[in-house]
Amino acid sequence: MLVVMHHWATDDDIERVKDTIKSLGLRPVAIPGAERTAIGVIGNQGWIDDGPLSDIKGIREIIHITKPFKLVSRDFHPRDTVVRLGKDLRIGGRSPFLMIAGPCALESREQVMKTAQFLIKCGVPVLRGGAFKPRTSPHSFQGLREEGLGILKEVREETGIKVVTEVMSPEHVEMVAESVDILQIGARNMQNFDLLRDVGQLKKPVILKRGLSATLEEWLASAEYILLEGNPNVILCERGIRTFERATRNTADLSVIPLVRKTSHLPIIFDPSHATGKRDLVLPMALAAVVVGAQGVMIEVHPEPERALSDGPQSLNFREFRKVYKKIIDLVEFVKGA
Amino acid sequence: MLVVMHHWATDDDIERVKDTIKSLGLRPVAIPGAERTAIGVIGNQGWIDDGPLSDIKGIREIIHITKPFKLVSRDFHPRDTVVRLGKDLRIGGRSPFLMIAGPCALESREQVMKTAQFLIKCGVPVLRGGAFKPRTSPHSFQGLREEGLGILKEVREETGIKVVTEVMSPEHVEMVAESVDILQIGARNMQNFDLLRDVGQLKKPVILKRGLSATLEEWLASAEYILLEGNPNVILCERGIRTFERATRNTADLSVIPLVRKTSHLPIIFDPSHATGKRDLVLPMALAAVVVGAQGVMIEVHPEPERALSDGPQSLNFREFRKVYKKIIDLVEFVKGA
Amino acid sequence: MLVVMHHWATDDDIERVKDTIKSLGLRPVAIPGAERTAIGVIGNQGWIDDGPLSDIKGIREIIHITKPFKLVSRDFHPRDTVVRLGKDLRIGGRSPFLMIAGPCALESREQVMKTAQFLIKCGVPVLRGGAFKPRTSPHSFQGLREEGLGILKEVREETGIKVVTEVMSPEHVEMVAESVDILQIGARNMQNFDLLRDVGQLKKPVILKRGLSATLEEWLASAEYILLEGNPNVILCERGIRTFERATRNTADLSVIPLVRKTSHLPIIFDPSHATGKRDLVLPMALAAVVVGAQGVMIEVHPEPERALSDGPQSLNFREFRKVYKKIIDLVEFVKGA
Amino acid sequence: MLVVMHHWATDDDIERVKDTIKSLGLRPVAIPGAERTAIGVIGNQGWIDDGPLSDIKGIREIIHITKPFKLVSRDFHPRDTVVRLGKDLRIGGRSPFLMIAGPCALESREQVMKTAQFLIKCGVPVLRGGAFKPRTSPHSFQGLREEGLGILKEVREETGIKVVTEVMSPEHVEMVAESVDILQIGARNMQNFDLLRDVGQLKKPVILKRGLSATLEEWLASAEYILLEGNPNVILCERGIRTFERATRNTADLSVIPLVRKTSHLPIIFDPSHATGKRDLVLPMALAAVVVGAQGVMIEVHPEPERALSDGPQSLNFREFRKVYKKIIDLVEFVKGA
Repeated sequence: MLVVMHHWATDDDIERVKDTIKSLGLRPVAIPGAERTAIGVIGNQGWIDDGPLSDIKGIREIIHITKPFKLVSRDFHPRDTVVRLGKDLRIGGRSPFLMIAGPCALESREQVMKTAQFLIKCGVPVLRGGAFKPRTSPHSFQGLREEGLGILKEVREETGIKVVTEVMSPEHVEMVAESVDILQIGARNMQNFDLLRDVGQLKKPVILKRGLSATLEEWLASAEYILLEGNPNVILCERGIRTFERATRNTADLSVIPLVRKTSHLPIIFDPSHATGKRDLVLPMALAAVVVGAQGVMIEVHPEPERALSDGPQSLNFREFRKVYKKIIDLVEFVKGA
Repeated sequence: MLVVMHHWATDDDIERVKDTIKSLGLRPVAIPGAERTAIGVIGNQGWIDDGPLSDIKGIREIIHITKPFKLVSRDFHPRDTVVRLGKDLRIGGRSPFLMIAGPCALESREQVMKTAQFLIKCGVPVLRGGAFKPRTSPHSFQGLREEGLGILKEVREETGIKVVTEVMSPEHVEMVAESVDILQIGARNMQNFDLLRDVGQLKKPVILKRGLSATLEEWLASAEYILLEGNPNVILCERGIRTFERATRNTADLSVIPLVRKTSHLPIIFDPSHATGKRDLVLPMALAAVVVGAQGVMIEVHPEPERALSDGPQSLNFREFRKVYKKIIDLVEFVKGA
Repeated sequence: MLVVMHHWATDDDIERVKDTIKSLGLRPVAIPGAERTAIGVIGNQGWIDDGPLSDIKGIREIIHITKPFKLVSRDFHPRDTVVRLGKDLRIGGRSPFLMIAGPCALESREQVMKTAQFLIKCGVPVLRGGAFKPRTSPHSFQGLREEGLGILKEVREETGIKVVTEVMSPEHVEMVAESVDILQIGARNMQNFDLLRDVGQLKKPVILKRGLSATLEEWLASAEYILLEGNPNVILCERGIRTFERATRNTADLSVIPLVRKTSHLPIIFDPSHATGKRDLVLPMALAAVVVGAQGVMIEVHPEPERALSDGPQSLNFREFRKVYKKIIDLVEFVKGA
Repeated sequence: MLVVMHHWATDDDIERVKDTIKSLGLRPVAIPGAERTAIGVIGNQGWIDDGPLSDIKGIREIIHITKPFKLVSRDFHPRDTVVRLGKDLRIGGRSPFLMIAGPCALESREQVMKTAQFLIKCGVPVLRGGAFKPRTSPHSFQGLREEGLGILKEVREETGIKVVTEVMSPEHVEMVAESVDILQIGARNMQNFDLLRDVGQLKKPVILKRGLSATLEEWLASAEYILLEGNPNVILCERGIRTFERATRNTADLSVIPLVRKTSHLPIIFDPSHATGKRDLVLPMALAAVVVGAQGVMIEVHPEPERALSDGPQSLNFREFRKVYKKIIDLVEFVKGA
């Protein structure tokens, strides 16, 4: 349930609404906004009898919500969220298209520095790179972990590039947040609810990847966990879903991008590398994401893909990336003008 | 197994190859080509011992094939197939992007004629419309059937528009082929092998839709049935696959489009109406198909979608279609120039 | 819509109901029953205004049905359907558990005769064997076709065993029906609606396999096509659905069996061979089917599985089958007593 | 890679093997066994050149492993693992069939105590109940959390029943482990690798549920994370996978049970409540699990399912449970005798 107040409602009115909600055994969450203040109600099982609220002054509307999310919904927050990624960098709304690139896994200081310098030259403002790697098998390379964070921090300070890395565990949230500009929640952790709550208590931007078999509704409900803790800076990232098709690693669900844009105010980007698992498909699918309304892409690039410790077959080398980058930028320009 | 002959191989050489294949209990299929003649071998279970062929003159190469298809493969036929749809209309290779539009189901002469006239004014050369409708329930509208074919024939003769309609049964192949320019095999019939064989005995172009849960490999193997009977005029059509996601009717698998273009020489189009089931998603997904390399799109349009007997929620009205059409054409132009 | 008459309703009352339905542009289908007569209404798009029926005498109840099936529903026909497969053989209701076994594909007279004699000795009353084989690739063995039907006919006459074989095309329905006791519609043809209609015009029992990605609702709607044409002798067969899991050929959906028994009056059997694709899993999964309420199983057995032209890895040899058979029968006995 | 030592190999031999492995930049993990000592090699990307090991004394065999798991494999540990759940309670090998039951979510001391007393009377040795609830939406009941653990501890001490509860976060592992007998890793956390590592450092038994869209291989690889840290007491639990079928909450994949028994030495149980989401299907599917080789079941039971705060529609009341329990036990007896 959402209690929307009139613009002229007083603080007293709002307090009375909150108290009444508490008296029903529920938890009120005030959501102040430029246009209107609203009070979300948390903790109900099914329908709430709104009778006790009926004679409180200042209530404009009571909205009963049956979806598993409220705060992430466009019904609730009609304007696009703009997430600030740094002084001059934004995503969402009318912000420029965002390019993120880098290796799947951090492997060495040299590899990361080389990539960062290459990306800066290209004009790519954000470097991705995994320090903690969620690998199916414990026998696969698990990432450089703390050492990787140190490398990221160094490269970021030295070059000025923004960096994003995955955080896999509540225990690491603080440490990771200190080392990077953007946190990533991976597909396998989309429903790691304690982790979601923990990154919700920061203000740092969070890229939330869609789970391997998550529906749109579940994905948005996971984002809701983060917003509900107070962090509105969530960027959704489609990375393919699991189907019976074996010709690609996953099946990119591009139609979810316009659906997200319609249902939610949060920005959304696309990861063509994981969605397809094939180097050749990165360019066409990235272009497709541009035209369906993605606000950015995240692409795997590696100085030597054939020697990558993780996901080599889907990584581009520098030469390939430069070509892909140019094609994407050209299409973005065209779409903007169209 | 594929026996590729030298360009200088004689008819005698070819005959000897065929005879040897027959002596192994297998069936030879000669596939003449501008560049080289090849002889496919049909009917083997697993590996064939090619020893008996080793001393025949004129054999350039023996290719052992483990995929379930040969003729549709680009290995076998490197150049794009161009399918002629009429005097001045083609698809494939460098042919212009093909627009197909029309109602899901034919409902009346008036509805079809109105739509045809509208499409001609727009510049859309092919009208789609189902006379025989494969409906989940026998209690749903099953199409106008023979009467629908009559309407198509009339409208086609009167307006000159090309028409495509689905054929659901071997018994109707001849009748349908006489009434229309292009036959369609629907998703539910992608593995109706007798039907595939029957349309393979015609020369009319065939649009072969991907099955609801068909892999790329199975889809191409179904196309192989048609080519093997002698009809090379197959156009593949991606229309979404079945997944757990419920926000869309199906999940459009756009990455299959560049995969088809790489693996096969056959042209491929995309049906955003069935792939999404939602009117709002038709435009973005059609645009996405353009940039990933689709050679055409098939879109549902209806004079009055709210009164459609089938698939109203995914059909555009004329005004909406005009806007969608223009956006697609603009993007096609951009992509051509890029 | 279903119009249920009182037991005392007269023929005149029934006629008046039918006429009123026709006057609404719909088609009445009378379904006489021991307990009550009901009149199904076919051909509506959505909700029917039942006002015109309100003053007809003898109507006990008007049931609006929103599911895509009526005749197959237990609401409509509360008692189990018993399908007669021959003089002394039945399936459904309290009939004994039905065993069907045989090779995936018919390969030779000798193979079929040997198998039939073995099965008779075991006590298995029905032999399965494909004459027409729906194969993904046209380069795979397509079955002995007409020759296979001849073999089945011969073996059936000589040994007295009942036989079931798949029919893939409306063109072959008559010919196949003359040669066998039970027709089978394969998974790939579950939505080959013209084929369903054609077998619906016979009285011969039909085994209708579930489609590779068919929902329960779609499967029952396909059975409805057969019943609507007048053939009530439908046996459903679960054979696994397509999922992302690669350790088995398909994923057996055993929970669909009790759901079918609850929703429909039609008998249901299980095919553990296709559902798993692995010889080792045939026994455990067949036993599981027994306890969830399957009324029979269909198992692939071959004199020499390692030389089978189709599906060898999931076929049992005679020795293995004997053991499996005994285990199944023991469990069936136990369940009956429990 | 796995280096299997002769039974007569000395500690020196083993050390030399370990040192050589380290010198290759890899990590040796000694796995002592009654029959033979083996040394697993961790950290390799692809094939390892085993040349440097060739002249070390005491090596019986070098096994190159390409699967993502080693320790959980039956190749590696041929005999069934028996997990001790308390003084007189075991699962695995020839241990008796294990019954676990209880509410989805802990709601109050009274609810839990009532259920525990009921289960003890029935003869059920383990109570399940969630203190921390992973819920799709943050607006749903999240469990009593710490308070719930307190209730479990109390009930366990007072009644002597064993208890299992889910742990969702590394931060809670210690606290949960102190309160209960068995830890559960839920489906959504099957690839929460840090959590797996943390429970791997305990000796407490862990029930590891299969992820919503996990393959058998991925599931076993997740178990490998736990074993690799030193905790061999893992019990696998199949709870249904996500498919397109909407008639059940998930699709129970029963064939995975015999596959697990063949591939791994770990015990496996089945959760028919989550696998189906429907009360009516709990009994038949639990019985099916018994016959395919499950070594236990976990069933949701609630004093008043219609008032449950979570998963009411799939919970049995006490009367229903008693009937289900009896049927399962009878079948277990039959299977044992068969």
